[in-house]
Amino acid sequence: MPRPLTREEQEWVERMLASMSLREKIGQTMQDHAGRLPFKGNDTEALAAYLKTYPVGSFFIGGEVIQKASGKAAEYREWTEQLQRISKYPLLFSGDLEFGAGSAVKSLTAFPPLLALAAVDDEALAYEYGKFTALEGRAAGFTWALAPGTDLLLNWMNPVITTRCLGDDPKRAARLAGAVMRGMQDHGLAACAKHFPGDGVDYRDQHIVTTINGLTEDEWVATYGQVSQSMIDQGVLSYMTGHIALPWMEGEQGEKPVPATVSERITTELLRERMGFEGVVLSDALDMGGFLAWGSYEKRMIDCFNCGTDVLLWPGVDYFGVMERAVREGTVRMERLDASVRRILQLKARLGMYGLDEEGRDPRALSLLNDKLPPELDLEARGLSQSLAERCITLVRNRGHILPLDPQTTRRVLVILLNKVTEGRKYERMNVFVDLLRARGLQVDILDEFEPLGTIRKWELSGIRWDAAFAPYFLPLHGMMNTARPVGEAAKAIWAMQHAETIRPIGISFATPYLLQDMPFLDALVNAYSLHEETVELTVKALFGELPFQGRSPVKTDPQGGSLDLRGMHHFEH
Amino acid sequence: MPRPLTREEQEWVERMLASMSLREKIGQTMQDHAGRLPFKGNDTEALAAYLKTYPVGSFFIGGEVIQKASGKAAEYREWTEQLQRISKYPLLFSGDLEFGAGSAVKSLTAFPPLLALAAVDDEALAYEYGKFTALEGRAAGFTWALAPGTDLLLNWMNPVITTRCLGDDPKRAARLAGAVMRGMQDHGLAACAKHFPGDGVDYRDQHIVTTINGLTEDEWVATYGQVSQSMIDQGVLSYMTGHIALPWMEGEQGEKPVPATVSERITTELLRERMGFEGVVLSDALDMGGFLAWGSYEKRMIDCFNCGTDVLLWPGVDYFGVMERAVREGTVRMERLDASVRRILQLKARLGMYGLDEEGRDPRALSLLNDKLPPELDLEARGLSQSLAERCITLVRNRGHILPLDPQTTRRVLVILLNKVTEGRKYERMNVFVDLLRARGLQVDILDEFEPLGTIRKWELSGIRWDAAFAPYFLPLHGMMNTARPVGEAAKAIWAMQHAETIRPIGISFATPYLLQDMPFLDALVNAYSLHEETVELTVKALFGELPFQGRSPVKTDPQGGSLDLRGMHHFEH
Repeated sequence: MPRPLTREEQEWVERMLASMSLREKIGQTMQDHAGRLPFKGNDTEALAAYLKTYPVGSFFIGGEVIQKASGKAAEYREWTEQLQRISKYPLLFSGDLEFGAGSAVKSLTAFPPLLALAAVDDEALAYEYGKFTALEGRAAGFTWALAPGTDLLLNWMNPVITTRCLGDDPKRAARLAGAVMRGMQDHGLAACAKHFPGDGVDYRDQHIVTTINGLTEDEWVATYGQVSQSMIDQGVLSYMTGHIALPWMEGEQGEKPVPATVSERITTELLRERMGFEGVVLSDALDMGGFLAWGSYEKRMIDCFNCGTDVLLWPGVDYFGVMERAVREGTVRMERLDASVRRILQLKARLGMYGLDEEGRDPRALSLLNDKLPPELDLEARGLSQSLAERCITLVRNRGHILPLDPQTTRRVLVILLNKVTEGRKYERMNVFVDLLRARGLQVDILDEFEPLGTIRKWELSGIRWDAAFAPYFLPLHGMMNTARPVGEAAKAIWAMQHAETIRPIGISFATPYLLQDMPFLDALVNAYSLHEETVELTVKALFGELPFQGRSPVKTDPQGGSLDLRGMHHFEH
Repeated sequence: MPRPLTREEQEWVERMLASMSLREKIGQTMQDHAGRLPFKGNDTEALAAYLKTYPVGSFFIGGEVIQKASGKAAEYREWTEQLQRISKYPLLFSGDLEFGAGSAVKSLTAFPPLLALAAVDDEALAYEYGKFTALEGRAAGFTWALAPGTDLLLNWMNPVITTRCLGDDPKRAARLAGAVMRGMQDHGLAACAKHFPGDGVDYRDQHIVTTINGLTEDEWVATYGQVSQSMIDQGVLSYMTGHIALPWMEGEQGEKPVPATVSERITTELLRERMGFEGVVLSDALDMGGFLAWGSYEKRMIDCFNCGTDVLLWPGVDYFGVMERAVREGTVRMERLDASVRRILQLKARLGMYGLDEEGRDPRALSLLNDKLPPELDLEARGLSQSLAERCITLVRNRGHILPLDPQTTRRVLVILLNKVTEGRKYERMNVFVDLLRARGLQVDILDEFEPLGTIRKWELSGIRWDAAFAPYFLPLHGMMNTARPVGEAAKAIWAMQHAETIRPIGISFATPYLLQDMPFLDALVNAYSLHEETVELTVKALFGELPFQGRSPVKTDPQGGSLDLRGMHHFEH
């Protein structure tokens, strides 16, 4: 549990609450998206007018984790200070800081993702992961990380938490997520565990549709329940609810599954009352497909608030009007609103938001030097990133000990680019892998066109031989794909590459840890978890024996795949 | 069981066998791909030289079912007659005639696919389906259909048998596949049930990798076993083995799963000995990914033949050399080769191949008139296609009875093209659906760009209202996708369309019957099973109440999806 508030903090909270108009209270219960402001983000006059009409309580800023990080830390910080000066009440600034402050701010440190952290499984390192996210994040103006993920990758087909979670073991996930969270909160950044009641059971993506965590009560308690309870007991300051239904709690689902973001039973009865969570409940983004099908805008907003949500993420400013009317008409009770606002103000108090100076500056934030932390700390952050990258690379399979390769005898290699380009020009970093091989002086042949399917055999029959063959794989994780598996071009590549007879293919996954499920014939598989720059470099080194493979797979894999248990599909009653 | 051979047939078989050289015998055990001949297919001299060097026993001709049908029946027939004249022994000509002779020959009748037949579930109609495939097929020169499918769609994620099978109920599949087969074989076309031991359990595609039928023995016997035994007992003349492993039969799978196409336990012990199949065992295509990983070319060929396969599909002509050496060295036994050749000759005898005239003409084939069957039969074939299209269309969900639409009040409609174009320009027939709506005089708005995600809401807010909203879906079925689910652009479309608040979306699947698994929020779902031209037209009519929805879903669906049984994944030992 978090420490009790000091008397000073308590008094500040009650003073603020007492001074607020209805509209200001409503504003505290929404989180706006800075990137979607209807004007240039640093236009002071426009900002002042906006906040006057829409006195929101917090902003989400920075590139989303599913997009690209951008910008400089100093610019973010200046912008947050400007807003603090303008805003009547101190604001919180959140970001999807899932893998360090570099998740959002390009000039700061981006660590390998959570799944890499799970492959290292070092609690002290996890704490540092949280600590440096906080030090860098707060220096850039962030006070609230929408992290760490507490989901479990129980369904290997899940397309969205893939490398954004701590694997499939509840004990490990609880241990590491707790450490990341403490590292953050001990250093001035509120953590937001996500998602409640837990993503990773469905094969779908809550960005696209409402998903279902179909575990039984006992199963849930032993998995997601264990992780969540541990986060709550260790004092996590906020929890994000997902657009995820939990049938054992909500009972028989009717026409529409009931996601946690509108479920009083999940959010209030389970999370608050049964598990004792006293922090801030933040909904997941309300423009996600998993929420949109629930009903009209007004119904969605009211149901989301009334079920027990304290802060709604990106509801849009029409939220003010909807809530004002709802309070007037009694659909939303004033005590319920006050309870949420009080929790939000308590969070602000804990983070020292009453202590900003008149310029909106945050005395608890470290100073930036050349857009980075002070040299010693910056070095430490980058060292941490490097160390994690070094230690996460996992050798999942190594038939006939073909890895590591001998740098002396490996001269010519084949790279089968399972995805040459994913999503147009947005994800081209696969080239880095090829460039690094070339930089070693290797002769690199590329196979990236798969019709006709037999090209590679034709090359072999013409006498070409390779000393190694790599099949690197990447797929971005966000609601635009609905799968983590190799499909389309990548599927064609898998068929095509098996025409070869002289190679022993080495898979390298920079995404899903489950590549063997679709490529069971691989002689070797290296999981690197992301296209994180240092990780790609170190992966190449590891392939050539210049670095040991130190990671341990944070998920269990089925070496031949195919093993869906179909008994759940009720086909055997015939 | 098929009728015993007549004495005349038996004598012909033994005479042919006795007259054959080793190379000619080897040739009988392979099926060549006419479309891959290394010269123009009707070059008589080249054909004669080719058959002299490579005396193959049968040819696969026509567009594959997974590609496009092409050509005229008369041209196919002339080509087969030309080859019969050249070949020392009569040839068989096969095609993937899965949905009528129009599957391969553009000018002949293409029926809706097997899953549509299952939605109608009329045994007499299934018999006619086989009968007209045979009459048209044989008129075009075909004597062997690589059909019907006897697979079961037990795993809704299976990406390849989706609409190419008879659903998930073994009894219905056995009843209908048996009728199709009898309709074929009673009219001069050998059927080839496929695939043994059964596709549809794995989430993968045997075109891409070896797949696994992971049922237990009891489960298998009650499902695939039941269907296969019924086909065998009714006298199916050939069975195609798939690149599909069957662990209960092969025991613990080692480094590589053992597909039926190299498994003596599956092909000989189970199919031949235990189930009593005496017909021809044809392998699935040997250039599929599911076979290629087995070993070197030579190993693959020998293992495939020795496990009990009578005819290898598309091994390539290097097969002759490999087999000659193997017989010489004793790796392949002469008695084993003779047994296969005898079975193939028996099949040829049954089909009347000893009765070709000196011009290579087939007296049992109906004459073509304007590239079609004689008018009365042609009319009957086309009527059958129409009737099946009419009766297959299935209303899976119809919340609030929004279907059928009232043609009087439906003026403006929205079409959300889940896939505008699939696989480049190859599958553009989705436009037909839109064109048909426009031809009715409807005002049709198209949504086919999904970034930004909120376009549809913007349209609504600008005051646009639609009287109906359709979400048509199609995905081709072949080893190039590895999924039947909406992914990529289609996934983005699903997210985007939920931004709308005024529509009640009507899904229309021209592919997978399981669209609700990824779009559980649909108010209505119509399954039409294919982009078969008449089906698309009739679907539009059914939407507007001009035709009743008569189909019954041939698969069970889970209305909210998400329900993978994870207990098979062994995550609950913690």
